[in-house]
Amino acid sequence: MGDFLGKMGMKSKPVIAIAGATGVVGNEMLAVLEQLNIPCSELRLLASKDSVGELYKFHSDEIRVEQLDGAAFEGADVALFATSNDLAREFVPLAVEAGAVVIDNSSAFRLQPEIPLVVPEVNFEAIKSSDRIIANPNCSTIQLVPVLQAIHQAAGLRRVVVTTFQSVSGAGKAALDELWDQTLAIFNQREIKIEAFPHQIAFNCIPQIDVLMDDGYTREEFKIIQESRKILGLANLKITATAVRVPVFHGHAGSVNVETEKPLSPKEVSEILSKRSELAVFSEAADYPMQLSVAGTDAIQVGRIRRDDSAPNALNLWIVADNIRKGAALNAVQILQRLLPQH
Amino acid sequence: MGDFLGKMGMKSKPVIAIAGATGVVGNEMLAVLEQLNIPCSELRLLASKDSVGELYKFHSDEIRVEQLDGAAFEGADVALFATSNDLAREFVPLAVEAGAVVIDNSSAFRLQPEIPLVVPEVNFEAIKSSDRIIANPNCSTIQLVPVLQAIHQAAGLRRVVVTTFQSVSGAGKAALDELWDQTLAIFNQREIKIEAFPHQIAFNCIPQIDVLMDDGYTREEFKIIQESRKILGLANLKITATAVRVPVFHGHAGSVNVETEKPLSPKEVSEILSKRSELAVFSEAADYPMQLSVAGTDAIQVGRIRRDDSAPNALNLWIVADNIRKGAALNAVQILQRLLPQH
Repeated sequence: MGDFLGKMGMKSKPVIAIAGATGVVGNEMLAVLEQLNIPCSELRLLASKDSVGELYKFHSDEIRVEQLDGAAFEGADVALFATSNDLAREFVPLAVEAGAVVIDNSSAFRLQPEIPLVVPEVNFEAIKSSDRIIANPNCSTIQLVPVLQAIHQAAGLRRVVVTTFQSVSGAGKAALDELWDQTLAIFNQREIKIEAFPHQIAFNCIPQIDVLMDDGYTREEFKIIQESRKILGLANLKITATAVRVPVFHGHAGSVNVETEKPLSPKEVSEILSKRSELAVFSEAADYPMQLSVAGTDAIQVGRIRRDDSAPNALNLWIVADNIRKGAALNAVQILQRLLPQH
Repeated sequence: MGDFLGKMGMKSKPVIAIAGATGVVGNEMLAVLEQLNIPCSELRLLASKDSVGELYKFHSDEIRVEQLDGAAFEGADVALFATSNDLAREFVPLAVEAGAVVIDNSSAFRLQPEIPLVVPEVNFEAIKSSDRIIANPNCSTIQLVPVLQAIHQAAGLRRVVVTTFQSVSGAGKAALDELWDQTLAIFNQREIKIEAFPHQIAFNCIPQIDVLMDDGYTREEFKIIQESRKILGLANLKITATAVRVPVFHGHAGSVNVETEKPLSPKEVSEILSKRSELAVFSEAADYPMQLSVAGTDAIQVGRIRRDDSAPNALNLWIVADNIRKGAALNAVQILQRLLPQH
């Protein structure tokens, strides 16, 4: 009897490569693969030359980082990409050519119409067996769409207004160091170095994430708007976003105002959201999620659900998740998990 | 020839008392009185017993802090209150009884229908000569209403959705110390003390400012909604708010979504707002105000003005101000300034 195959012909014990394994998201992918006990016959950790030779623990093994190059994907069944957009544009096609299914956390392919953009609990069915690349959405989008989908199915979305509070970890290791170093420099009255962000982030909020575009929106805001539409399959969803970087290490929060076609009480919203396994609902007003309390956790946490009397059928919500786990690494590995053959 | 009298019979060189002079806002009132060269024949600094005897510089004088008690207002023409609500409820009536005009920064009297709630550039005319108490609005409200008034006059407000990013200085000296101490404790791996806020504020955002009410809103959110309506004279203004404390020392920011009756382009909004002396407009997208850059400044700064396509005639804006200056002490002293006789 041969091997059972999963969706996209996935083997039960695939060869997995992580491209960008030494970054914040790549590292977390490694941790999540172990935590979710994803079976694999081999795990390859790929990174730039500087990191080659570094050793990482995976279960009882020690894995040596190899160089990310064209040859590195030979024989790989799955490639999890946690690289920059530029490296993804260069190496994702090579991984596909080598026969791997790619799950890519960069934004390089997300809005290409033929590439599925997936939060597994929301639109896993968007993946066709013939697909070779699956895009992992933007961190702020991932934590938003399960909530929006549940509300849409219950009452029809009319309009969404989002303001985000995004931690520095979304910008990588150098950004984590920068918040830490700037904060220390302030205490020690030393000069502040600004490299990872356009301005000082220590004790400051920056209303710019990613580059500014011609219409005055940032690319991050554009991603939240366009990726939400694509994942939800609502091409004309009325949604606007303001994305703000805050001096917090881990976790993204969003203040979300939703208008619906039909009325929904806060209690009904709590009940609807509570039915979804990926969400944790705080239905008591005095109890609410915060970035500090979601760091390292898997669920998207929703609180401060309350009626907004400024429009018919309007609600305010506060949505928080670990942007590196559910917002990136966990979501990518969950996609892989559902591609594996079910025994 | 006698003394010219200003509005409410204000003398040209009044006796001024500051109640709560040693707190963050009271201290800033002292600084602003000096910076704006407000004439006075005497300045009294009043505080609780613990601070009695402390010396503060005012122009070339040194002023000794006296005890805040019923007798302290005798002969005072103006009393600037920067105390807690409880102390305001106790001592404002005594100051009025002693003959002083009170400008009160607490929230104790703000929503009483007969008490004017004033941002001088917006509704100075709300003050009648017979008034004895003028309420100074909530810091988040002060920076919002001039922008809303300008947009309303130009195009009619239909709905406003506000999410705030509020610094710790709004919660007083102990709160400033708490952000500082918690941050240091994290660096030194010491235990964190939580007293001024309901949760750790260092490297965290707390979606609760002031107490939670039965409808799920916080009192801060209630203040933003109700005070905006009262100041703008729009009792039925459709407005909702989410107020969030961020780990920033000074300055409040707001992500503000506005829908209007008539269309307004971002360029038109910039032009309309630029005409108001209390506003500083950043019309280039790449240039935007931040909490770090407004600390110690007087203007309400507005940037990231952009069209929101999710609703007809909708706009997003980012509004930042120093919550202790324009959001509190400066606004109070500006009220006094306009009560003085003009020569």
